[in-house]
Amino acid sequence: MLYIVLAESALELVPQQIWNERSVLASAKSKGKHPSQILLDRSLHHSAMLRLKDGLKRGRPDLVHQAVLAVTGTPAYLTGDLRLYIHTYVNLVIEVAEKTRLPKSYFRFQGLMEKVLSGQKEELLKVREMSFKELIESIGAEMVIGFSRRGVLMKPEEWFSRYMQRDKTVFVVGGFPRGGFSQDVLDQLKVIIAIHEMPLETHVVLARVIYDYERLRR
Amino acid sequence: MLYIVLAESALELVPQQIWNERSVLASAKSKGKHPSQILLDRSLHHSAMLRLKDGLKRGRPDLVHQAVLAVTGTPAYLTGDLRLYIHTYVNLVIEVAEKTRLPKSYFRFQGLMEKVLSGQKEELLKVREMSFKELIESIGAEMVIGFSRRGVLMKPEEWFSRYMQRDKTVFVVGGFPRGGFSQDVLDQLKVIIAIHEMPLETHVVLARVIYDYERLRR
Repeated sequence: MLYIVLAESALELVPQQIWNERSVLASAKSKGKHPSQILLDRSLHHSAMLRLKDGLKRGRPDLVHQAVLAVTGTPAYLTGDLRLYIHTYVNLVIEVAEKTRLPKSYFRFQGLMEKVLSGQKEELLKVREMSFKELIESIGAEMVIGFSRRGVLMKPEEWFSRYMQRDKTVFVVGGFPRGGFSQDVLDQLKVIIAIHEMPLETHVVLARVIYDYERLRR
Repeated sequence: MLYIVLAESALELVPQQIWNERSVLASAKSKGKHPSQILLDRSLHHSAMLRLKDGLKRGRPDLVHQAVLAVTGTPAYLTGDLRLYIHTYVNLVIEVAEKTRLPKSYFRFQGLMEKVLSGQKEELLKVREMSFKELIESIGAEMVIGFSRRGVLMKPEEWFSRYMQRDKTVFVVGGFPRGGFSQDVLDQLKVIIAIHEMPLETHVVLARVIYDYERLRR
């Protein structure tokens, strides 16, 4: 079984610190919700986010959506060979039940995430407060591979033969737009691999490493 | 140079036939636009679309967005080795200028598409009325490969060595959610290849064949 963890994903409700910012109030009002019930979104709350710690790393639900779809569209996921966890910047973990299809429409994805992050129950998405370390321990992973531009450049055949001999392997990819993994995440990675000399978006990295996994394990 | 054509893409403005449908009027009103200026969208206009010819194949701008991002995030695209054309169901072709980054936010993508399909000029996106055949002729393609579940199942090494020896190759992938290519498209394809025994979403097929192209041409 392969486990995919989107780490420190830029997916969270608007933090209290900026509930009273004009752009936040405006977007909450347009949805008829309280600021605490809407997703932080750089495309709407850019200037307010400048006040947040790690502001440049947060508030990109569109990126997380795109990454999730890149995973859930793969044969490995569709056949139940792969499990997906979304670990977020604020240490919530969304565990996606096997083979669950998440909404392809961004509007519906946004609504679903606002719902589960606000504490409403959804049978197929379990949300827990959990650090990255606790998540890795709960999976019981035998090998944890991080993919990042800051890792060692390696061809798929090479990393596959060196690191993919264990039963429970976790692939960790950052669910954020820029910057590297935090120390909490780095501490859990057995190896960090760069799949290309260029920086690539999260969904591109996921599409490629899952394809590599499928074609090389045969 | 590799050319990617999203064929018969489910991206169009609401057709006149359903301008007066309630769901269409409602979504136009909420955006302060006329029904002729908004995208046809199954997630909003489902019941109205039942009246349209090929209704099940149309009105999926979210699918087209996802597919476009799967292309524009690849190293081949980012380095200018690959060009993207969006051919739509109604025979408009959007030619994307080299290396152009399209919006990652769905809202912004939607706004941009509404703008260019309504005839407003955008320097980096040239919109022309053009059949699929005319598009292939204008590219001057030497080889046109279609990817579809209905094609011949083939491994990447096999299709690459058999068909990728020409300078100007076009990859054609359907930009629609279900059904096969129309006869107009089929007539232009030299070969149709299935990359997997399962049906796969457009963005997954694109991510894989572009990756295959990059890794096998070395």
